[in-house]
Amino acid sequence: MSRRAPLSAAELSALEGVLWSHGPSRDVLASHLNYSRTRANALVAGLIEQGWLDEVGPQASSGGRRAETLQLHRSIGVLLGVDLGATSVEVAVLAPDLQVLARHGEAIDVGDGPGAVFTRIRALLRQLLAQLQLKASDVLGIGVGVPGPVDFGSGQLVEPPLMPRWDRYSIRDDLRADFDAPVWVDNDVNLMALGESWRLRRALPNFLVIKVGTGIGCGVVCHGEVYRGATGSAGDVGHLCVDPAGPRCRCGNVGCVEAMAAGPAIARLGQEAALGGQSDWLAQVLSERGTLTPEDVGTASRLGDAAANAIVQRSGALVGQMLASVVNFFNPSHVFICGGITRIGPLFLASLRQSVYQRSLALSTRHLDIGLSPLGEQAGVIGAGVLALQEVLRQSVPSRREGMAT
Amino acid sequence: MSRRAPLSAAELSALEGVLWSHGPSRDVLASHLNYSRTRANALVAGLIEQGWLDEVGPQASSGGRRAETLQLHRSIGVLLGVDLGATSVEVAVLAPDLQVLARHGEAIDVGDGPGAVFTRIRALLRQLLAQLQLKASDVLGIGVGVPGPVDFGSGQLVEPPLMPRWDRYSIRDDLRADFDAPVWVDNDVNLMALGESWRLRRALPNFLVIKVGTGIGCGVVCHGEVYRGATGSAGDVGHLCVDPAGPRCRCGNVGCVEAMAAGPAIARLGQEAALGGQSDWLAQVLSERGTLTPEDVGTASRLGDAAANAIVQRSGALVGQMLASVVNFFNPSHVFICGGITRIGPLFLASLRQSVYQRSLALSTRHLDIGLSPLGEQAGVIGAGVLALQEVLRQSVPSRREGMAT
Repeated sequence: MSRRAPLSAAELSALEGVLWSHGPSRDVLASHLNYSRTRANALVAGLIEQGWLDEVGPQASSGGRRAETLQLHRSIGVLLGVDLGATSVEVAVLAPDLQVLARHGEAIDVGDGPGAVFTRIRALLRQLLAQLQLKASDVLGIGVGVPGPVDFGSGQLVEPPLMPRWDRYSIRDDLRADFDAPVWVDNDVNLMALGESWRLRRALPNFLVIKVGTGIGCGVVCHGEVYRGATGSAGDVGHLCVDPAGPRCRCGNVGCVEAMAAGPAIARLGQEAALGGQSDWLAQVLSERGTLTPEDVGTASRLGDAAANAIVQRSGALVGQMLASVVNFFNPSHVFICGGITRIGPLFLASLRQSVYQRSLALSTRHLDIGLSPLGEQAGVIGAGVLALQEVLRQSVPSRREGMAT
Repeated sequence: MSRRAPLSAAELSALEGVLWSHGPSRDVLASHLNYSRTRANALVAGLIEQGWLDEVGPQASSGGRRAETLQLHRSIGVLLGVDLGATSVEVAVLAPDLQVLARHGEAIDVGDGPGAVFTRIRALLRQLLAQLQLKASDVLGIGVGVPGPVDFGSGQLVEPPLMPRWDRYSIRDDLRADFDAPVWVDNDVNLMALGESWRLRRALPNFLVIKVGTGIGCGVVCHGEVYRGATGSAGDVGHLCVDPAGPRCRCGNVGCVEAMAAGPAIARLGQEAALGGQSDWLAQVLSERGTLTPEDVGTASRLGDAAANAIVQRSGALVGQMLASVVNFFNPSHVFICGGITRIGPLFLASLRQSVYQRSLALSTRHLDIGLSPLGEQAGVIGAGVLALQEVLRQSVPSRREGMAT
C-alpha cells in the first residue's frame, strides 16, 4: 500500500461522494458538497494530482460540456472482502470502485475453530492475489463479515452462539500473519446490508436484509446508515418467539424462529419425513448418504415432493411471522432475503410473503417490497469491501473533528 | 407572531444548537458549529440583534471569562402543544425554551368525532392563552399529537384504527378557525419520543418510548432522530402477535398484544373477575358504578387484590413479551414506558421487566434500562412544542439547500 498525504475533511467528503454516487462527475460532487463548481474543480484537481481520483471518459453529454466520470484510482490498491458463514465462506479481491476482480467460495465449518478456518481463508486470499498478480502490499484494507455479534471497536466476536470457540478471538492479529493492511470486522448481515446500500447508492434510506442459513439474522439500514444498535446486537432476530408453545431452543427459550425454521430445522424435518415414510425421495437420499441437508429438502421440493413442500412452506411461514413483527415495528420500504435459503426454491419466498402480508398492518405493507437480495452471494464481500474502503479513507484524515458546519 | 428577517443556514444551525444544548453558551455553539470563537460571536450578535436570541446571566465560571447562557428570546412568541389520546387530552402553552407556561388535561372521547373534540381543544387553548394574558397572534406554531398513523406532510390521520371518523380530517383547517400559526401533526408516541430526546439533548441516540393506554404504540429514536419508517407507520407494535392461539383482534389477526394487554383488556378481565367471584373489591365497584375502568383494576391491585394482581401481571408479561422481540431487533439503550398504564402501579413495570429480561438475548439486555418516562404526562405536549419550534425555525430559512458541507 502506497503512502499518501493526509486528506482534509473536504477531500474525504469528496472521495466519499465518489464512493456513494452513481457515475460521479464534478457537477455531482459540487452539488453533493454544496460547493461552487470552481471550488469542486479545485478539490478534484488536487485529488487527481495526489493519485486518489481518476477520470474514466466522458459521460453522456447533457448538451453542455462533457462531464468526466470520476472514480477512485485503481493504483491506490485493492480491498479484500471475507464473508464467513457458519458452513461456507466467500472471499474476494475488489478494486477501489468495488468491482469484484476475483472471487472464490467454498464450504467451511466454523466448528473447526478460528485458527484452522483463518489459516484456510488466508491461503485463499493469497491465491486470489497471486491469480491477479498482486502482492500482499497492494492490499489497502480488509473487511471481514462473521456470523455472530461483533464488538466493532476491537473487531472481535462477542459470545457468538453458533461459534463458541471464537469468543474474543483476534481476527486482526490472525490476518497480520499475511497482511499489513488494516482489518475491520462486522456481523455478516450488517455487511450484506452495507453492500446493498452501496449498490443502491443510499437511494433507499430504510430497508432490511434477512439472512436465513444455519442461523437467522437481520441487517438494518435506518436513515441511510447501517444501524448496529446500542451495544451492537441490532437485527438479532433469530430468537424472536413465533410460538410460545414451540420447542425449546439452545438459547433456553421456547419457540425461537431460528430453532423452528432455519437450515438445521429444515434438515431435521426432512429426516423425519424420510424416516416416517412421507417422502420416498428423501428416504432414498438418506439411505444413500446417511444424512440430509436443507438443500436436499429444497431439491425434493422443486421436484414436487409433497412432504418437502410442506417443510419449506412451514419454514417460510414462520420466518414470515417473525418478519411481520419486524415490519410492523420498523416499517421498511424493502426486505431483501439472502443466505442458503435462497437456494431452496421459490416456494420459501412465496410462503414468507403470504405470511408477512397476512400478519402485518396494511399501512406497513402497502408499499413493502420483499424479494431476494439483488447482490446475492456477493452482497457480503462487496459490503466488506465498502467497509474497508470507508474506514481506510476516514483514517487518512488526521484527527478529524466531528461537528456541524456551514 | 412578529415577522422577522429570514434566517441563513448558519443562523438556523445556531438556533437549533441552542434548542438542543444544555446551557448553551457561545463556546458550546462554536464547538457545535465547528466555528472559531470569533465567528460564533458574530453569528450570536446578529441573532441577538434580530431578537431571536437572549442572554440569561453568567454560567458558573470555569476560571476564564464568564459565559452567558443563550436561549431563544421569549418575545418571539409561544408554542401550543396538544397531546390527544383516545380517552384524554393534554394541552399546554410553552415558552420558546420549552418551559411549560400553562397546562391542562381532561378526559375526552375521540369517538365523539374530530369536530366536537377540536372545538373543545380550541376552547382549552384559548383559555390557557387568556390565563397567561396572551393573544392568538402571540402563537408562533402549534404541534399536535394524535393516537394513530399520520401522513406528516398533510398533517392528516390515515385510516386510524381507534378513530374511524377521523380519517383524512384536516386538523390544520380546524385550528385555523382560532389561530393563524402553522400547525404540524404527528403520531402521539413520536412526539413523546421527540420530547424525551429533547429532554436528553440527544444524549441517547437509540431508545424507545412505549405507550400503553387504550392502544399500544412505540416511538423510535434512531441515530439521534425520531424514526417514522418508510411510510410513517414505524413503531406500530400494538398488533405484534404474542400468542398464535390467542383471541381474535379487531384487526382480523389473532393474539395481538393490544387486544390482550392494553386498557380495554385490563378492564374486561377485571369485569370477568368481578362477575366470576374472584374479587369482592372489583365486584363492589362494578355493582356501584355499573362499569370498571383499567384504573379500578390498578387500584384493586395496589390494595393487594389477588385477582387484580394477576391481571396486571399478565398484562405486563404480555407487553414484555412483545417488547422482547422489539429489543432483540432494535437493541435500544433505554425503553421509557408512558400512557395510562403508568397509573396502574409498580407491578406492571416489574412484570414487564421480568418478561423482557427472560425473553431477550443477553447481549441486548446487558445494558438495557427500562423505566417510566421521566417527562411523564408532559412528554407529549413538550414533544409537540419541540416539533412546532423546529419547523418554525426551518421555515424561516428561504429555500434551504440540503447537502453536505465542509
